[in-house]
Formats: sequence, C-alpha cells, structure tokens
Amino acid sequence: MTAEDTYAAFLDHVRRIGYVGDAAGHLRWDQEVVMPEGGTPARSKQLSTLSGIRHELLTDDDVADWLEELDGADLDPDRAAVVREVEREHERARQVPDELVEEISAVTSEALPVWESAREAGEFEEFADTLAEIVALRREYAAAIDPDRDPYEVLFENYEPYLGIDTAEEILAELRDGLVPLIDAVQASDVELAAPFEGEYAEADQRALVEEALDAVGYDRERGRLDTAPHPFSSGTPFDARVTTRFTPGEPLDALSSTIHEFGHASYTQGLPREHYGTPLGDSRDMVVHESQSRLWENHVGRSRPFWEYFAGTVVDHLGTPASARDLYEAANTVHPDNLIRVEADELTYHLHIVLRFEIERDLIRGDLDVAEVPAVWNDKMDDYLGVRPEDDGEGCLQDIHWTHADFGYFPTYSLGSLLAAQLDAAARADLDLDGQIRRGEFGPLREWLGERIHRHGCRYTTPDLIEAATGESLSAGPFLAYAEEKYGALYELD
Amino acid sequence: MTAEDTYAAFLDHVRRIGYVGDAAGHLRWDQEVVMPEGGTPARSKQLSTLSGIRHELLTDDDVADWLEELDGADLDPDRAAVVREVEREHERARQVPDELVEEISAVTSEALPVWESAREAGEFEEFADTLAEIVALRREYAAAIDPDRDPYEVLFENYEPYLGIDTAEEILAELRDGLVPLIDAVQASDVELAAPFEGEYAEADQRALVEEALDAVGYDRERGRLDTAPHPFSSGTPFDARVTTRFTPGEPLDALSSTIHEFGHASYTQGLPREHYGTPLGDSRDMVVHESQSRLWENHVGRSRPFWEYFAGTVVDHLGTPASARDLYEAANTVHPDNLIRVEADELTYHLHIVLRFEIERDLIRGDLDVAEVPAVWNDKMDDYLGVRPEDDGEGCLQDIHWTHADFGYFPTYSLGSLLAAQLDAAARADLDLDGQIRRGEFGPLREWLGERIHRHGCRYTTPDLIEAATGESLSAGPFLAYAEEKYGALYELD
Repeated sequence: MTAEDTYAAFLDHVRRIGYVGDAAGHLRWDQEVVMPEGGTPARSKQLSTLSGIRHELLTDDDVADWLEELDGADLDPDRAAVVREVEREHERARQVPDELVEEISAVTSEALPVWESAREAGEFEEFADTLAEIVALRREYAAAIDPDRDPYEVLFENYEPYLGIDTAEEILAELRDGLVPLIDAVQASDVELAAPFEGEYAEADQRALVEEALDAVGYDRERGRLDTAPHPFSSGTPFDARVTTRFTPGEPLDALSSTIHEFGHASYTQGLPREHYGTPLGDSRDMVVHESQSRLWENHVGRSRPFWEYFAGTVVDHLGTPASARDLYEAANTVHPDNLIRVEADELTYHLHIVLRFEIERDLIRGDLDVAEVPAVWNDKMDDYLGVRPEDDGEGCLQDIHWTHADFGYFPTYSLGSLLAAQLDAAARADLDLDGQIRRGEFGPLREWLGERIHRHGCRYTTPDLIEAATGESLSAGPFLAYAEEKYGALYELD
Repeated sequence: MTAEDTYAAFLDHVRRIGYVGDAAGHLRWDQEVVMPEGGTPARSKQLSTLSGIRHELLTDDDVADWLEELDGADLDPDRAAVVREVEREHERARQVPDELVEEISAVTSEALPVWESAREAGEFEEFADTLAEIVALRREYAAAIDPDRDPYEVLFENYEPYLGIDTAEEILAELRDGLVPLIDAVQASDVELAAPFEGEYAEADQRALVEEALDAVGYDRERGRLDTAPHPFSSGTPFDARVTTRFTPGEPLDALSSTIHEFGHASYTQGLPREHYGTPLGDSRDMVVHESQSRLWENHVGRSRPFWEYFAGTVVDHLGTPASARDLYEAANTVHPDNLIRVEADELTYHLHIVLRFEIERDLIRGDLDVAEVPAVWNDKMDDYLGVRPEDDGEGCLQDIHWTHADFGYFPTYSLGSLLAAQLDAAARADLDLDGQIRRGEFGPLREWLGERIHRHGCRYTTPDLIEAATGESLSAGPFLAYAEEKYGALYELD
C-alpha cells in the first residue's frame, strides 16, 4: 500500500468511529429530552454497546498498524493533524479495557434517574452509592491510562488535552486573585441595579422570546431545533446541532441567556466544515474552546449594553413588563453573591462556583475526600466563598449533572472557556465595530469572524496553537479581568 | 468450553446485535419525528454505519463457530428457539456482502427527503431514479441470498420467514375471492350510513381525543409516547415503545383509528418479556403477527359497536359534534370504494389496495415491470379494482413510505395480519365476554389474553406454530370473511 492508500483506509475507519460516536450522542439527546422514564434500562444497554463498539474501533490493531505506517510518511498539515488527534485518542484508549468502558457507560446511564430523583428530594444520600461507584470507576480509568500520574490530571485531558493542568491551575489562580477584590468592592457598593421583573412569566411567552432571540442571532433552524431539558445542553453535528433550554417562571431572563449560551455552542458546531464530517478536521476543538463560543455569545453579546438597546423592545413585547434598555442591562448584570445555583450565577461569582467544584472533584479523584463528605464540604465552601449555605442538597451538591455523567475534570473548562471568550471578544473588537453591529442587530460579522478564526479549523490546531492563531496571544485571565473591572466598575460606580 | 459456556458467550453476542439494531431504530424514529431537515446527510452516515456493524456482528466467524458447537448440544426449547432464529438470520446475512448492506441503508436514508418532496409535488418522475436504484439494490440482495429462487419469495421472508409465499398467495386469493362479491353487494345496497362529521376539527381537540383513547385502551405512558409523523408508525423496545399519529382536519376519526392501530403494535412490544430484551425470546414475531395485533385493536375493538357505545360520549365531548353510538359505529365502518389512500381505507377495500401493491412490487422485483411504468400500472389497477383513478402520483403510487425504505415484500403481511386478527378475535371470544368488556371500557382482559397467547412468547415459536398454539388452527381467510359478511351484511342490510 502507498501512504495515500493507507491514509484513505485509515480515514474511512476514523469516519466510522465518528459516526458511531454521533449516533450515541443522539441517543443521549433523546434520553434527556424525549425518552419516557421506563426506557432507561434499554437505553443504557444500547449506549454501553455503542460505547464499547466505538472503543473497539478506536483501539483496533489495524489503527495501530496504519499509524505506524503513517508515522514516517510525508503528510500535509491537515492530514498530520488528523493523525495527531487519532493517535492521541487511540493510545489513551488502548490503555483502557473494553469492559471498563462499557461499565462506565452502563453505570452512568442508569445513574441518571437516580440523580434526578435524589435532586428532586434534595437528598444526597440517595445518590451517594451511585456517585461512589462512578468515582471508583473513573479512578480505575485514570490508573489504566497512567498509574504514575495524578489521576485528576489524566481526567482533565479528556476535556482539554493540550493546555495542561498546571497552566490551567495557574490561570485559575490569576482569575481568583483578580476576582475576589472586585466582588468585595461590588458588595460594598451602595448602587442598587434595576430589577424590573416581578411575579411569574408564562412559558409560552418566554418561549416566543427565546425563539425570536435565536432567529436574531442567526441560529440555522434547518440544521437545529430547540427543546426543553432539566439541565440545558447542546449536542449534534454540523448537519443537526440542537439546543435545549428551560423556563423558570420568576426569572424570565434566565431562559434567554441560557438559550443564547447554547446557541454559541451550536453555532460552533454548525460552523464546522461539513466536508470533513466524521473526522477530527470536522470536529470541534475541546471543551475550553467550545465554552469560549457559548460564553462569548452569552456574556459579551447577550449581556452587553448594545444588545439590550437592540433587543429591549422585543423583551417588552413578549413579557409585557415595561423596562428600558438600561433597566434590562442592569437586570442582566446584577451580581448576586447569595445565589446558590451555578447556571443562574452572574459573570463574576460564577467562577467561584467553578473553583468549589474543581477542588471537590480533584480531591475525590485523588482519594483525598470521601463521597460521604461531599455535602458538608460543599456547604462549607459555599459559606467560605460566597457567604451562603444551601438548605438542601438539591440546591447544593446535586445541582449539576456532570458527575452523574462521570465528567470529572470538565468543570475547570467552563472558567477557562470564559477567559478565552473575553480574549476573543477583545481580538474581534480590533477588527469589527462590534458595539455598533450588535446595536443594529447585525450578528453576521461576528459569526463570520468566529467562523474564520475558530470554527472552520476543526481540530487542525492544538488548543494553545488555535488560541495563539486566533488572538495573537496565549490564554490568560488578563482580558477577562480587564473587561470585568471596566464593566462592573461602571455598573457599581467603583473607584 | 462446555455447551453452557458456549451458549452464554453466544447469547452475549446476540444481545449486542439486538442493542445495535434498537439504537438504529431510535435514530430512524428521530429522523421521521424530530430531526431537522438538514440532518439527513449525517443521519444517513450514522445509520449505514450501524447497519454495517450489525451485519458484521451477525456474520462474525465466532457466530458460525458457536452455532456449530451448539448444533449437537442438548438445548431446552427456549434456547433451541434462540439458536434457530439467530442461525436463520446469520445464514441469510452471510450471503450478503457488507458493502451492499451499507449501500442499501445509505441510499434509503437519502431517499426519504426525495420521496417526501416528490409526494408533495405529486410527481413520480422526481422519485423514479431513486426507486430504480432501490429496486436494483434489492434484487442484488435477493440474488446474493439465493440466485436460484424467485427474488420476491426471498424478500418476503425478510418480513415473514416461516409462512411461505405459496401459502400467502393462496390465502390472499381466498380473501380476494371472498371479498369481491361482498364489496359488490355493498355497492349495490341502498343503505346510506350516518356521516355525522362536517367541516374541520382542530388538531388540539383531535389530540386530546386520541390521548384519552390511548389511556382508555391501556397504553403504558411510562414506556411510550405519542408524536406526530407524516406516515404514522410505531417503534421501540419493551421499555420504550412509541407511537405516532397524524391529524386530518376533515376526518376526525382517522387519527383515532390510526392511533389505536399503532397502540396495538406498541402493546405487543410492551408485552414482550423484558428479561429477554435483546434476544429473539424478547423480540416480536414477524410482521404478520405484529400486524394482527394492530388490526385487532383497530378493527375488532376500535370499530366495534360496543366500543362506540363506550366511547361515543368522549368523542362528542372533544369534537363537539352531536353523534350517537350508532352514528359513530356507522361512520367508522362506511365502505368507500372510491377512496384512493390505503391508510384511510375501510376494512373491506383495504385488501384490494394491498393486492395492487403486492402485484406491482412482485413484478418490479421479478424484473417483469419497469420502474417508469409504475404510475400507469398503479392507476389502471386502481381503476380495475376500485373504479377510481388518482389525479396525481401523490395520492397514487407515491403515497406509501415502504418502497423508500426498500421494504419490498412487506405489503402482503398487512392483509395476512388482518386475517390473523380476525382469527385471534374469534378465539378470544370463546374465552372472554369481549363485547360486554369493551362496552364497559374493560380492556385489561383482552390485553392479558393477547399477552398470554402471543406477547410473552417472543420468537419462541415459528409463525405457523404460534398461530396454531394461540387459535387452535392454521392461518386462513375464513374467520375474517365470516366476520366481514356478518358485520357488513347487517350494516348494509344484505341478504
């Protein structure tokens, strides 16, 4: 076989791996959005089987042979990137026994209704055994990949393979050190921001509002759909990138910002090059980059002053409450250190919710914290960082779905993604009249800028290289802190 | 390995085949019910990959080895049944190249939007090349399995493996010979049946009505859901058996009977033994038996006089049109030889729609009919059998989804299933006070009777053995013709 033939056979196989993964992704969407409750046992079998098959395809001896043959070949940069990405995943996966992969998939699928019911009851104990089982399986998984490294470092690479946990921890420390005095100053301020909403808003009105927002920012409906889910998420392919939201009667801006957030994810997915579908060149870079897209749209667009100047009339039309652009801008940016729920947190305190989860999950995975201690540690840290205590575990340590999915190492990517969002926003402003465009409801130039700098590349570059190419600098907390200090300094009239 | 170990390894593998098949089934549900239009290219790749993987698992050399080892083993009847079913499928599948299986899946998945648009435009020509491609692939498929047998006979066995095409043709001839004079007599009758519905009925009211009907007959909502689809169908597993329906503004009883029909299918699926999920013992017998369940509920329950005595008040409540039980009974059983659409046909003329399709697809597959001739032949046969001609292909040869799915050989199972429904209904009446129970809205005894006689057996018996065990007789048109002559003789006051 020539290198050309080898690469072609290799790429066919790589596409099959991608298709099986996407099939499983759609079954998970179905499970969280439309599946009846009784379907769990069968879905769990289907998902663990697909997960096992994907693993077998990825670890196939043929893949090892092709990779070896391609090792010395003179590949163009795109092909070399495909080889780099598959090789990395292949080598990790070869370390993990098939049975362990299927077991993790089966256990997490069965964990979902247990977590849902425990969360509803507010009782961590109902979920403790399940969580202990998931933690043990994830530790076993990390040890299989590399028994000599920090297991949390190994797991973090599932979500962000190239940045490195040390860099991540440094950046998060820079962020925390910058945020703590800013939040203190905000708390000390006498300024009271506007709070125009009172009472409850009908789901139908909120739905009409978020549908209009999706159309405004440019969600392609022929390649997507909006549904509701208890924990909003987005998933799919460049051909079918779906978003979900949820409606809270008393908080009509929550569904709006959550939907714009998920649109950011879906817009990335829809912007991937379709001709490379099924291969790393047609797949999104990892979680930090994905979250940068959602955060950029949610915060730097959807929480900006010009956005409310553009969209205030639409909000008033649908919700019926009179509010000026300034009122809405203030309402969307009020800092609430007493808020308990991560997904409802403001732009500043959000990152302390993340730090808390990061510390707990790191200690769980390192074996420094027992599962039974999670609620107490959670509640104490909430008290320390934000001065509030959850009344039950439903609004405490059971609020997030991630651990149910065995996603340990995922949380830090949320904050890192937010920092990248600020860095991209600053870079985009050097090229575009972003404020003016947003004020006029012209979102095309930003979508195109992001498509050009981020989306079209798929996994062509590693995360650090992509960030460098898109913004001219490596990732840091600087641009976010500068943005936060300016914005919240003005809102709260700080010195 | 002991025979016990061999059987255990074999069964694990069999379950994986089942799970992959069900995963694909859910992706097809998604494609027809919720997927955005743009999703087709990716879905087609996902489905053809899963179809190829299922085929590889089924034809694996391990399976051949296990089957050989189990050949002489002393297996209990249940295990022997599992081996019989898997062996049959394995041997057929081994004849078909993997590439052909993936190609059929890819082509049929891409065919769906082509068919939908051609049907909407009423233009067969838009679909002709696609259909020609599907026919050619199906002929290639039949020839791969057995180049020496009638290809249509081979394809029929995909849907009903044990009855035999000769038996099927004999029974269908008996049916046609019995029906033709009965329909003639009905057409000659002066009786005008009641037609209480006029104008259009809102989808919300129709939906509320069919929801209430599903609750009445005992659809388990924790293991199912109702959606809409252009061509109603049911699919899923014993844990998650979904139904779809469609609402026609001017025909408010159509959605009701179609929903009860799909409930019959789902009730069979929900009644399969869950402990055998993924194996033939937990899977439904083939299409004739499946259709007997839907037809029994649709016609022998949902179109019966006692059903309308029970349900008339509910219909009036939801639709607002005053109608007596007798009016509704007549409206649900009016014979319309001038109707063009199979799924809207009455109990009698329905079978002539089937005979027409059976003759056309048999000739297409045998190579005796060119695809280009389909519309003309279709329209002429409609004229011959029912005295009507479609005005365009949308209400003619494009009305059914089956050929788009490459399902040649499927149509005869609809009529054969209806005949089995009548045979089961007659047998159930020997054990149950069915009329009295239906009149009182007690559907549990019939569900249990069917569960006991049919559902719980999965594929334990072959079709002829299951029919014999359940009804004491082999399949024939006799019970259906006796039922039809009595019912329509009374309705139309025939001699």
